Amino acid sequence: MRRSKRLVLLSKFLSDNPNRIFTLKFFGEKYDAAKSSISEDLNIIKDAFYEGGEGVLETIPGAAGGVRFRIKRPKEEIENFILGLCSVLSDRSRIIPGGYLYMTDIIFSPEYSSRIGEIFAQIFVEEEPSCVLTVETKGIPLALMTAKALGVPLVVARRDSRVTEGPSVNISYVSGSSQRIQNMALPTRALSKNARVLIVDDFMKGGGTARGMMELVRQFGAEVVGVAVLVTTALPVEKLVKNYISLMVLEKIDAETGQIILKPLKFQNDKEGF
Amino acid sequence: MRRSKRLVLLSKFLSDNPNRIFTLKFFGEKYDAAKSSISEDLNIIKDAFYEGGEGVLETIPGAAGGVRFRIKRPKEEIENFILGLCSVLSDRSRIIPGGYLYMTDIIFSPEYSSRIGEIFAQIFVEEEPSCVLTVETKGIPLALMTAKALGVPLVVARRDSRVTEGPSVNISYVSGSSQRIQNMALPTRALSKNARVLIVDDFMKGGGTARGMMELVRQFGAEVVGVAVLVTTALPVEKLVKNYISLMVLEKIDAETGQIILKPLKFQNDKEGF
Repeated sequence: MRRSKRLVLLSKFLSDNPNRIFTLKFFGEKYDAAKSSISEDLNIIKDAFYEGGEGVLETIPGAAGGVRFRIKRPKEEIENFILGLCSVLSDRSRIIPGGYLYMTDIIFSPEYSSRIGEIFAQIFVEEEPSCVLTVETKGIPLALMTAKALGVPLVVARRDSRVTEGPSVNISYVSGSSQRIQNMALPTRALSKNARVLIVDDFMKGGGTARGMMELVRQFGAEVVGVAVLVTTALPVEKLVKNYISLMVLEKIDAETGQIILKPLKFQNDKEGF
Repeated sequence: MRRSKRLVLLSKFLSDNPNRIFTLKFFGEKYDAAKSSISEDLNIIKDAFYEGGEGVLETIPGAAGGVRFRIKRPKEEIENFILGLCSVLSDRSRIIPGGYLYMTDIIFSPEYSSRIGEIFAQIFVEEEPSCVLTVETKGIPLALMTAKALGVPLVVARRDSRVTEGPSVNISYVSGSSQRIQNMALPTRALSKNARVLIVDDFMKGGGTARGMMELVRQFGAEVVGVAVLVTTALPVEKLVKNYISLMVLEKIDAETGQIILKPLKFQNDKEGF
């Protein structure tokens, strides 16, 4: 196979399998080429991914080493994407009677959810999550795309335990905003004791659901390494969860005037995964 | 930018955006290159994607024309993937008391769900679906990945209508297996009248849920262009839905002996998207 074709297939493969380590030997056999040729290919791809703002191709030394593609987009590009999202979500036709914001089409769209998942992954990759956890239903697309970008499994807590999923750990918690008692369940086989869990959700008001997920993780003896949400409300200021990243803050939604104020996350330098 | 780098970035872009048409002009501006250079790049990528079994790069003529990457994997590769899936799912530790099969980790894994979604997309792409529909919860990852591979939005029906999603169409239906009355709701803004809907779900027994989704689509005046499920049970033979594609058939599950018999779909020639 000629270099140009190998470059095409290698680029696609690395892009499809982010954050996972592959050896030169693996690629050599896959594309029937000498390790030295693969090594030169990877240098070209490394430069191209870097210049194109796609991410970094890292060389991991040692016996378990190889190369790993990590999605890493420029800060400005991510900020522009979030600004665009704020603008799309600020359309007054999105106000639902009762003062809610309709976001379902955005979080269920593969285009938006994959971009958002990649951003969450980029912010938390250094924490080395071993899985992503969310609770049904609306958090699932964002959590799945985050898991894909991290190259790790997704785990989904249910509102009730299911007979089809076997024994489960169940907890009750008080939702932060409505002060209602809610349930959450996770099959015992879904999470291992040494898991490093990244919690992902679409929306946070009081933080009760995120707190419930943290409690659930604790019941398994596993560790929470981060909490990522798409939108939080400005009020209440005090959430039941202390450390989290939110891409947007919903400051105001006024059904009368049709006004929606969404503030994008501003990234500080050398923080939050950049 | 040199050709080699452009090949890397173009390949990644096309792979990330399957089934969507882009003009040479768009790429020329994106990578600051002459249309003739882009055209040569695309020929190389076309050959590489074809030889690597990734899919086809089609040239669409006319004013709305351009190039489109369609995932199209060789029949043998897909059959091998499904065979492997049957083997993974036949592990006796997957039998849940009550005679259920634990598949949650597979359908929630980004790795499996993206492969399965690509297969569904490949089978139904000629029907030109304009969106993918599923019902919460477990069908969501497969449906999202199918929508991604088709380059169309995902729409998710809920078990109950939500105050946060505004006015909705609600239906009641009788589940095919348990004969219980169930509800399903979809926000009125989620589906347009001229939508071409591909229904995706993880599991089918009697076919009641799929039938419910078909009824829901009909209420919107839209059209169902296909039904795709990961696993169906062999019994009952008569489902409430007539035309569907299922990647696997669950013939037997015996908690006593630990025996699970899963039969993979055999693709006929010149059918089912091949």
